Amino acid sequence: MFKMRYADPGTAPATLTPFAPGEASEPVLTLIEYNAEYLNERTVATVAELPEPDESCVRWIDMSGLGSVEVLKALGEKYDLHPLALEDVLHTGQRPKTEPYDQHLFIVGQMLYNDEEGILCTEQISFFLRPNLLITIQEEARNDVFTPVRERLRGGKRFIRKQGADYLAYALLDAMIDHCFPALEELGEAVEELENVLLSNPSPDCVRTLHEFRRTLMVFRRFVWPERDVISALMHDESGLIAAQTKVYLRDCYDHTIQIMDLIESYRDITSGLLEMYLSCVSMRTNEIMRVLTVVSSIFIPLTFVAGLYGMNFDFEGGKMPWNMPELHKPWGYMACLGVMLAISIVQVLFFRRKKWL
Amino acid sequence: MFKMRYADPGTAPATLTPFAPGEASEPVLTLIEYNAEYLNERTVATVAELPEPDESCVRWIDMSGLGSVEVLKALGEKYDLHPLALEDVLHTGQRPKTEPYDQHLFIVGQMLYNDEEGILCTEQISFFLRPNLLITIQEEARNDVFTPVRERLRGGKRFIRKQGADYLAYALLDAMIDHCFPALEELGEAVEELENVLLSNPSPDCVRTLHEFRRTLMVFRRFVWPERDVISALMHDESGLIAAQTKVYLRDCYDHTIQIMDLIESYRDITSGLLEMYLSCVSMRTNEIMRVLTVVSSIFIPLTFVAGLYGMNFDFEGGKMPWNMPELHKPWGYMACLGVMLAISIVQVLFFRRKKWL
Amino acid sequence: MFKMRYADPGTAPATLTPFAPGEASEPVLTLIEYNAEYLNERTVATVAELPEPDESCVRWIDMSGLGSVEVLKALGEKYDLHPLALEDVLHTGQRPKTEPYDQHLFIVGQMLYNDEEGILCTEQISFFLRPNLLITIQEEARNDVFTPVRERLRGGKRFIRKQGADYLAYALLDAMIDHCFPALEELGEAVEELENVLLSNPSPDCVRTLHEFRRTLMVFRRFVWPERDVISALMHDESGLIAAQTKVYLRDCYDHTIQIMDLIESYRDITSGLLEMYLSCVSMRTNEIMRVLTVVSSIFIPLTFVAGLYGMNFDFEGGKMPWNMPELHKPWGYMACLGVMLAISIVQVLFFRRKKWL
Amino acid sequence: MFKMRYADPGTAPATLTPFAPGEASEPVLTLIEYNAEYLNERTVATVAELPEPDESCVRWIDMSGLGSVEVLKALGEKYDLHPLALEDVLHTGQRPKTEPYDQHLFIVGQMLYNDEEGILCTEQISFFLRPNLLITIQEEARNDVFTPVRERLRGGKRFIRKQGADYLAYALLDAMIDHCFPALEELGEAVEELENVLLSNPSPDCVRTLHEFRRTLMVFRRFVWPERDVISALMHDESGLIAAQTKVYLRDCYDHTIQIMDLIESYRDITSGLLEMYLSCVSMRTNEIMRVLTVVSSIFIPLTFVAGLYGMNFDFEGGKMPWNMPELHKPWGYMACLGVMLAISIVQVLFFRRKKWL
Amino acid sequence: MFKMRYADPGTAPATLTPFAPGEASEPVLTLIEYNAEYLNERTVATVAELPEPDESCVRWIDMSGLGSVEVLKALGEKYDLHPLALEDVLHTGQRPKTEPYDQHLFIVGQMLYNDEEGILCTEQISFFLRPNLLITIQEEARNDVFTPVRERLRGGKRFIRKQGADYLAYALLDAMIDHCFPALEELGEAVEELENVLLSNPSPDCVRTLHEFRRTLMVFRRFVWPERDVISALMHDESGLIAAQTKVYLRDCYDHTIQIMDLIESYRDITSGLLEMYLSCVSMRTNEIMRVLTVVSSIFIPLTFVAGLYGMNFDFEGGKMPWNMPELHKPWGYMACLGVMLAISIVQVLFFRRKKWL
Repeated sequence: MFKMRYADPGTAPATLTPFAPGEASEPVLTLIEYNAEYLNERTVATVAELPEPDESCVRWIDMSGLGSVEVLKALGEKYDLHPLALEDVLHTGQRPKTEPYDQHLFIVGQMLYNDEEGILCTEQISFFLRPNLLITIQEEARNDVFTPVRERLRGGKRFIRKQGADYLAYALLDAMIDHCFPALEELGEAVEELENVLLSNPSPDCVRTLHEFRRTLMVFRRFVWPERDVISALMHDESGLIAAQTKVYLRDCYDHTIQIMDLIESYRDITSGLLEMYLSCVSMRTNEIMRVLTVVSSIFIPLTFVAGLYGMNFDFEGGKMPWNMPELHKPWGYMACLGVMLAISIVQVLFFRRKKWL
Repeated sequence: MFKMRYADPGTAPATLTPFAPGEASEPVLTLIEYNAEYLNERTVATVAELPEPDESCVRWIDMSGLGSVEVLKALGEKYDLHPLALEDVLHTGQRPKTEPYDQHLFIVGQMLYNDEEGILCTEQISFFLRPNLLITIQEEARNDVFTPVRERLRGGKRFIRKQGADYLAYALLDAMIDHCFPALEELGEAVEELENVLLSNPSPDCVRTLHEFRRTLMVFRRFVWPERDVISALMHDESGLIAAQTKVYLRDCYDHTIQIMDLIESYRDITSGLLEMYLSCVSMRTNEIMRVLTVVSSIFIPLTFVAGLYGMNFDFEGGKMPWNMPELHKPWGYMACLGVMLAISIVQVLFFRRKKWL
Repeated sequence: MFKMRYADPGTAPATLTPFAPGEASEPVLTLIEYNAEYLNERTVATVAELPEPDESCVRWIDMSGLGSVEVLKALGEKYDLHPLALEDVLHTGQRPKTEPYDQHLFIVGQMLYNDEEGILCTEQISFFLRPNLLITIQEEARNDVFTPVRERLRGGKRFIRKQGADYLAYALLDAMIDHCFPALEELGEAVEELENVLLSNPSPDCVRTLHEFRRTLMVFRRFVWPERDVISALMHDESGLIAAQTKVYLRDCYDHTIQIMDLIESYRDITSGLLEMYLSCVSMRTNEIMRVLTVVSSIFIPLTFVAGLYGMNFDFEGGKMPWNMPELHKPWGYMACLGVMLAISIVQVLFFRRKKWL
Repeated sequence: MFKMRYADPGTAPATLTPFAPGEASEPVLTLIEYNAEYLNERTVATVAELPEPDESCVRWIDMSGLGSVEVLKALGEKYDLHPLALEDVLHTGQRPKTEPYDQHLFIVGQMLYNDEEGILCTEQISFFLRPNLLITIQEEARNDVFTPVRERLRGGKRFIRKQGADYLAYALLDAMIDHCFPALEELGEAVEELENVLLSNPSPDCVRTLHEFRRTLMVFRRFVWPERDVISALMHDESGLIAAQTKVYLRDCYDHTIQIMDLIESYRDITSGLLEMYLSCVSMRTNEIMRVLTVVSSIFIPLTFVAGLYGMNFDFEGGKMPWNMPELHKPWGYMACLGVMLAISIVQVLFFRRKKWL
Repeated sequence: MFKMRYADPGTAPATLTPFAPGEASEPVLTLIEYNAEYLNERTVATVAELPEPDESCVRWIDMSGLGSVEVLKALGEKYDLHPLALEDVLHTGQRPKTEPYDQHLFIVGQMLYNDEEGILCTEQISFFLRPNLLITIQEEARNDVFTPVRERLRGGKRFIRKQGADYLAYALLDAMIDHCFPALEELGEAVEELENVLLSNPSPDCVRTLHEFRRTLMVFRRFVWPERDVISALMHDESGLIAAQTKVYLRDCYDHTIQIMDLIESYRDITSGLLEMYLSCVSMRTNEIMRVLTVVSSIFIPLTFVAGLYGMNFDFEGGKMPWNMPELHKPWGYMACLGVMLAISIVQVLFFRRKKWL
């Protein structure tokens, strides 16, 4: 729930707090240089091996793994990244945001995907955009959402190869956001399944599942809502880093965030409705159970009383004392008693019929 | 619930993903050319047969069925439709929107109508508006909402024949939006009927029906709300594609969307109120059932105990031992016992009367 | 609930659909011409008898009854009323709105009043405002909210006689809106009465009444809210039809709409609170009922068991076999048994006391 | 609830409707004239005795009691007060508002205070502000919130004596608004007390008290919210009646309204939470009661059945017929029967233990 | 709940009301003078010892403890602090706000931290910012949130030493706001723990804990929300007191307030969900309990009745009278009776199986 890293209160801003050993994986640096004709892709061992920042071709530097503060610092110094932005890279679990700095645009995104067990995971991805240079920093190398974009780059003569770093940033953001669709589709199916279960056979487990759905939706909402603002800010960027043509594509991406928000709100409405339905089912069931209990008890408890009455031992002198259960020794006594019982039952059954409880 | 088509995350934008075979019907292309004096209507087999885009008269090209990506591509190339817009045509289940492109205005609408079984269906309709040219693309040819507009066109000397493609687009949008009214009227009648059932004889089925109503209202809300924004955007269009005179008519259409939203909100309020009423009915009923059970049990259980007391076999030496149920052998024993029972009953009845449970 | 008239989807805009025979009353046309010195009031039979539109004096044409499309058309032609506005006149149950047309201002209002049986009724009133000319069209002549204004006009030397048609329109709108106050006052009294009933003796009927109150409030809200916008739009009118002096009076009227909305919101809050109070009352009552049942049952069921125990027929050889209910034949047997029962009762009573159930 | 005076619908605006005799107290007119050196305070009998409106010194005319329409009219004529504003003075129960007229600024405020019995009362106070002249009109003279301000005026050489009528108006408004704090503090203590009662011993009376709290909060909200807007409007006044220096003090006053709103919202949240807590307490209690009933009944009802079984009179020929309750005449019969009962009890106790009901 | 100090209604603005003796601690004055090369830190006994306000170096005057109105007044006179601001310093429990005065910027902040017992405490901190001068006034010296910032100042050659008083104010505000993170982290863990308890073993204590969580969240919300506005106002400050470079850092701080609000909203959602889950658990449990009671009672009550029937004493003349319980004296009587009982049980068990209650 509270999975945000933060610095101790009072720490100087822009302090880079390293992860505890084993908490984060070692960074892997990958460089892709390309233009319309040319593509060069390689993994580098140290930041020093990376090319100086010039604008001869589009460069994409990807760093996966936050395990080394030194690599991050070196990267920051080489490409003039603002220390406050670097601090945010390490504070994982951030709210998505975009911040214009003098030298670059800084974007924080959160990728949402279901892991193999169907549990929603989040991974923070930071973008630094400079003219013809894009630096992306991922939490880990595990779930690489960027592979399809890399494939498109490698594919030659593609539209993406003719565009600048801003289009690359768009393509990556788009891939990141579109990753929500399959996760939401799975969730939608699970909700629909739960709906069927609730209508046929509600059990307390349903409430637990509902509660989990709502928490999942909350995570979606918490991260997709600001992502919408990020895309909107990029669409209205005035720094000149985002080309007008790219903004048309960003509009498409913005549209996707709105559709995701729409789905999330719909699911929230449905889960609320399901809880109400569950509660009304339970109270209807209690009502039905009580009805059976009441009908059975109300009929048989008076009958048992009558039977008990004639099971009493008041039979002083074999019924010859006129006040001591004289009925017992009349020939019609037993039949009369059964008759009374029958009458009581019939009256009650009629009463319950009129009340529609039977 | 999740009926949105989407491309795999990371796919290049503007990729046209074909439908699976059988999932979508083959496209049928219809062309209507008209001006105030003249109307020509025909079905064409291929895109190549369609006229070149010139502005000599108003042209309406309608494509029903999304089964062929090739036809769509050919159409896009011939009339210079933006690839991102074409992609959205195939991503059915979209949120209604309007997007200005350099060459044309792109509008996505969703038609809502009840099918023969009274179930709410949605169908995506895309509009491409250029000067004197309107291209509409429908999901299927099945439920043709455009027929009355075609009739008006054919009707000669009508107002619509003297207007441009923008007025035609308005007329189609208006027909599409007005289709909500009958569906909402049906829903309103169903809600009112349910209200009567709930007031007279609430059953668990009501909750199910209520839940379905709320889902239907959610679908309405999800699609009509953005449609309002679409109309509003068209009313304030600055591209020059929408004539000032048409904007007066669009205001009328905008008004209809507001009235639809108003009705939807009213229905939502009423369905919430109905659920609360149902729940309070159920708990009141449980209360009443419990009252009967409590009254019957509280009266007869003590009586049965008294009867059981005198049914015990403590009668050592025929009641001559003073401590062993001496009452049994007194002449007034039985009457006293009955009297005690009567007294218990009367006290309880009075108690329940005072509590207003009887 | 759905009391809105609407045209079939796809109908050409501005089509005037006539009412079914008997559904609407025949129109009655009244003309009042006045200025500071002069007042002329008469009923006319046909539209042709009405004066040509000139601005020599203030004219108020009132049409009550929507039974004749022809009269409406004639009126529209004579005074140049926009066809879209005329269509809205016939679509009763409209949302209040104001629409500026080139020739005139068009206002739709809804009058809310309680009929003799205390049921909330709505009646649509349409206004066409031109310089020195006001045309009002009412649904029926039955409940004439305009009478007091007519009286003021006739009263001579009144302020209203010195003003233009815009002030007349204000006076009529003001009369229409102020009609909500008595209806709301009645509703407020009914709510307060229900509150007292709920606090003293809640019954299932209360929920029904509450539900009706909420529907009434919903109707108020649905019509008064947009009426506020209508008045606000008139206050900021830039067409020059509304004189600056009249705008001061419209501000007063606007204030009234806000006060009405305020009351409606307060009543909504109170009715919600009443429902919660009802539900908590019912569950508290169930609780109390259950407490009585539990106390009585828990005390007497074990006692009955003990009595039943000694009512068993295990008395082999008159109690001489040591294992067969030896207690029966001890002199202290009965007393011991009574003692055990008493002990059980006391323990239970103490237990229930500690639990505060007794 | 509906304590608003209003004119009959259709009445001419600015009609002054007199109160019924006895409904309002006779007006008392007080005049205070002052500047930095000089203060003159006196009660006057008629409006004619009041000085002509000139700006030689600051004048504060206070009228307490709305019993005489004539005095109000005379005041209005003498100081050129707008008739619409005078009408609002008589329509007590108004929403607080500020309205600029040509000659003066008109402010309606509502003072909220707890009377001796702790019940929230409201009193309308109207302000007319002209250069160097302030006229205040109170509903009654009973609860004079203005006394401390009068004291400050009399105190000589105070800051307030050097300021204009605008500062005086601020001081009075501030006193009026600050009167909410003690009332809210009392309410806060009452809520806290109720919270303790609910946690220790919830009773149906709590719901009634909660409901009263919510109505009180609703009244606060209804009047303080628009008062905030009044102060805000004065802070941004452009008529020149409010000096820049006074606006700094109005900001302080605005701040107080925000703090009051903040408290009201907090209390609303808490009262909602308390109701939920009450409901969950009640249902938990019902649950507990049911548990006791179920445990006791489930254990003893089967035992009573077993006892009843051996209390039957099937003992044909003293147990010699093999099928007629042979157990009765075995030496181990009674013990076996007790054993069976014990076994049943143990099984049930274990079952209830496992369910955590015992 | 209502922990706000306020002046009596009608008191002159800017009146400094002293605390009751013992209610507030005696003020301790600390002065830190520094620039990039130089740092001088000392505690002073009286305001007179403080340096005159010149801008030769950055000065930070901290006053801890509000016990002396005189010290506050002296401070106000020496450094020209506005009396209204000084009044707000004493009115602890204020809503955070920022107010520009001519001579200085006035900021009220609220620090939120958990005390040793984990209870949320608030402490008001006031800031007066002038060029190169910052005066901070804390409620008490107990929980010094400023220590880490002091350490950073002392640390020499740090970034903070090269900046002005505006950066110092930022650093202190940042420390104050970041103090929420640990408190929220603790709360988050407590919520998660409660969630586990609720899922495994809900008890009435959970509701109490939930209610406390909600009150804690309410306090957070009430103070952090306006703090966000404070930071935002500083970011857009136009007085020139805040340097452009500091605004970049304030943006970082603003971001933290948004993240805190985000967490608070998430926790609020979760606690609402938990309450609903608790209620549905309780009603499901009641349902289950009732089911057991109903099954046991419905099976055994009819059996007990049958047993009671044959325990009646109708056995006139040893069963020779044909109507008096003839079954008793048939050899198959007992077996038939047991058979009937068995049949009843089987029918009921089957009925309950079909209903899924068994």
